[in-house]
Amino acid sequence: MATRPVLVFDVNETLLDLEHLSPFFRSTFGRDAAMREWFAQTILYSQSLALTGQFTPFGELGVAVLDMQATLANLTLNDEQRQQFTTLMRTLPPHADALAALQRLQQHGFRLFTLTNNSTDAQTAQLEKTGLRACFERLFSIEDAVPPACKPAEQTYRQVEQALTLQGAELCLVACHTWDIIGARAAGWHAAMILRQGNATLAAGPQPHYVCEDLHALSDKLIAAYPLNDFSGRL
Amino acid sequence: MATRPVLVFDVNETLLDLEHLSPFFRSTFGRDAAMREWFAQTILYSQSLALTGQFTPFGELGVAVLDMQATLANLTLNDEQRQQFTTLMRTLPPHADALAALQRLQQHGFRLFTLTNNSTDAQTAQLEKTGLRACFERLFSIEDAVPPACKPAEQTYRQVEQALTLQGAELCLVACHTWDIIGARAAGWHAAMILRQGNATLAAGPQPHYVCEDLHALSDKLIAAYPLNDFSGRL
Repeated sequence: MATRPVLVFDVNETLLDLEHLSPFFRSTFGRDAAMREWFAQTILYSQSLALTGQFTPFGELGVAVLDMQATLANLTLNDEQRQQFTTLMRTLPPHADALAALQRLQQHGFRLFTLTNNSTDAQTAQLEKTGLRACFERLFSIEDAVPPACKPAEQTYRQVEQALTLQGAELCLVACHTWDIIGARAAGWHAAMILRQGNATLAAGPQPHYVCEDLHALSDKLIAAYPLNDFSGRL
Repeated sequence: MATRPVLVFDVNETLLDLEHLSPFFRSTFGRDAAMREWFAQTILYSQSLALTGQFTPFGELGVAVLDMQATLANLTLNDEQRQQFTTLMRTLPPHADALAALQRLQQHGFRLFTLTNNSTDAQTAQLEKTGLRACFERLFSIEDAVPPACKPAEQTYRQVEQALTLQGAELCLVACHTWDIIGARAAGWHAAMILRQGNATLAAGPQPHYVCEDLHALSDKLIAAYPLNDFSGRL
């Protein structure tokens, strides 16, 4: 990438800790793996809907998948449990590296944005609560794509390009989900994969430019590759 | 549905028993849930590729996801393990209800086809080994769609319509996967959901016309709805 990349961060799990949901799944389903199964099924169905030109808001879809999972476990959830789950999703804590790494990137002149499957309202609540909001120029939601669709649908990445009047190659998605990396790369973006717990790269489809253990490691690489006194970029 | 529907069956898990893979996952990963996690991730990534206009043959993708899963478990698979897995996929046994229900539908004048994410070669091997092949007029693979893409991409269903010169409303998908039901319904097909172990309906997206415990229950409903001496159909 010749010019300094504009960084677009996925939110859930990349910046915020999805493991915060685990106690809910453990107490509801009695199995630690139930949280990962719920997340995989929620992403799977967000893609089924995107592929067939349909859309259900991500928060609503997450609850529908939770109910499906309950059916499979011979359970029936009540409204209180559903509300508890939604509240947990809106109050995910930040990963330990998130604030420091974002501030460091900001201090080194990187422009930072988000792009999440969540609604603007939900992610604003999430990021304000965690103190991360001030790191970002603007928060993008896939609900503002036309038509709205979950990542990795192409229009979710294109809306960011259009809003910022940038080309894909000037943007770099930072995410811990390989399906998101696949979408960004297919749209012509650069991509950085963060190896959060429960995530790995896949030997199929397009690959990320960076693979890093955490956001500190990525910041090190980006700051070294694009020093602040190098004015070849878009600063 | 006014006219007798032409029935198009999903293969893996709808007709053949995916639980046949469980001992492999149990011995490799030490957890029963690993098989379901592998299948969900394989479908998730088949959809990520379809959404971004890319394609990896389903068998190959399944092995790539298996390797990803091994990485997450701090394991490295060898070629013998990968080969063992591929062989197991090609030799899934039929569900106990499959042969009898398919033969009964055939005897009652229903035209039967398949449509699977597997290649034609792989499904032919699967269906011949299980004795189910003779029940079907023709086997469709998503690899013959243009461009090839995994279900629930629209073109996978359209290729069946075109090959049989039928309209979507004359076809009924029979599947135990809600993501496949969503695709068929979005394409204008009728759809029947079979509640195989580990599968349930989802309160989002389009819903199936029939929800049945097994293929016997579906056969009962279809035979009652479209008696053989009713010539209003396409026989």
